[in-house]
Amino acid sequence: MNKIIVKTTSRREMIDVTDHLRRAVAEAGLADGLVVAFIPHTTAGITINENADPDVRRDLLAHLARLVPETGDFRHSEGNSDAHIQASMTGSSVTVIVSGGKLQLGAWQSVFLCEFDGPRSRSLYVQTIAGGK
Amino acid sequence: MNKIIVKTTSRREMIDVTDHLRRAVAEAGLADGLVVAFIPHTTAGITINENADPDVRRDLLAHLARLVPETGDFRHSEGNSDAHIQASMTGSSVTVIVSGGKLQLGAWQSVFLCEFDGPRSRSLYVQTIAGGK
Amino acid sequence: MNKIIVKTTSRREMIDVTDHLRRAVAEAGLADGLVVAFIPHTTAGITINENADPDVRRDLLAHLARLVPETGDFRHSEGNSDAHIQASMTGSSVTVIVSGGKLQLGAWQSVFLCEFDGPRSRSLYVQTIAGGK
Repeated sequence: MNKIIVKTTSRREMIDVTDHLRRAVAEAGLADGLVVAFIPHTTAGITINENADPDVRRDLLAHLARLVPETGDFRHSEGNSDAHIQASMTGSSVTVIVSGGKLQLGAWQSVFLCEFDGPRSRSLYVQTIAGGK
Repeated sequence: MNKIIVKTTSRREMIDVTDHLRRAVAEAGLADGLVVAFIPHTTAGITINENADPDVRRDLLAHLARLVPETGDFRHSEGNSDAHIQASMTGSSVTVIVSGGKLQLGAWQSVFLCEFDGPRSRSLYVQTIAGGK
Repeated sequence: MNKIIVKTTSRREMIDVTDHLRRAVAEAGLADGLVVAFIPHTTAGITINENADPDVRRDLLAHLARLVPETGDFRHSEGNSDAHIQASMTGSSVTVIVSGGKLQLGAWQSVFLCEFDGPRSRSLYVQTIAGGK
């Protein structure tokens, strides 16, 4: 398992971490199988979306904040329930297929760490798995 | 890795792709492990839900459209931010356990490609992984 | 594959099932790889979130109910469309990395079965996968 540290710089942002998955696949010498990236945090998530127009990330973060505002009928004393809820809405891991030694992402896809309660130092865990029967 | 082409016929719909996963498992001769289905697109998702009453799919698509309307405070110039956001809310892959050569889905579960910005020709990637320690 | 039965006691609740994943890893003797937990139901989900303050679970369940109320413009005749939609929003499986025989969860993370239409007897399937190239 590879462990990567990602430093976030604002309360809410999406950071492209695809190169960390590519590096793990290359280091493992994986030809065919899966690469899994996992976020060991409860106020950050991970998702796959468009890497071309940064307004896609802006619109995604802004709309999640409209769906789950920072303040509301929340009881969690730390005041970051919005971040916990958005983390479960995006998910704690992504799974990408590897074939011929390459991540099988679409042309416009990247893997993004979703910071919902930063800035913080976040960990990202990456594991490779061989394919086959 | 199996690559399947799925043609969608409307802007928003859910298409049962479970048989493509079954076929990949049969072709690989996989007895026990996982099958992963991945969508290499950023305006389509994939999810598991009920295959019996088509109104479940209708209600799911209709409610996602209420949560993320097609028009709103969006900046992405292509005008399909709703589709990008719904793609991250449903996710880009599903993982199903295989045991005894069979997908371990519940009686009412199927795997659905979620088209949020069609009609288009979409790809679906399927990878099998052997279980064990 | 391990199959576990979880009895839920109210319509909507989150139940910590992490120990079932730990047991499957120990029984398989898995050192490094993945453990996947899958819910074979369409009105229950599974997610990873905070295990310390129970108000995080309360806030998550309450907010999902605000986003997807029990009654609304739904056609599914069983009257539990909210549960189906929330199941797709949380997802039907979680994937956790295993290293050195241990689940690589963050300090505050647990795996929770999300009951959205109980009380019922629910199944949870757990599969281990070896890592490597």
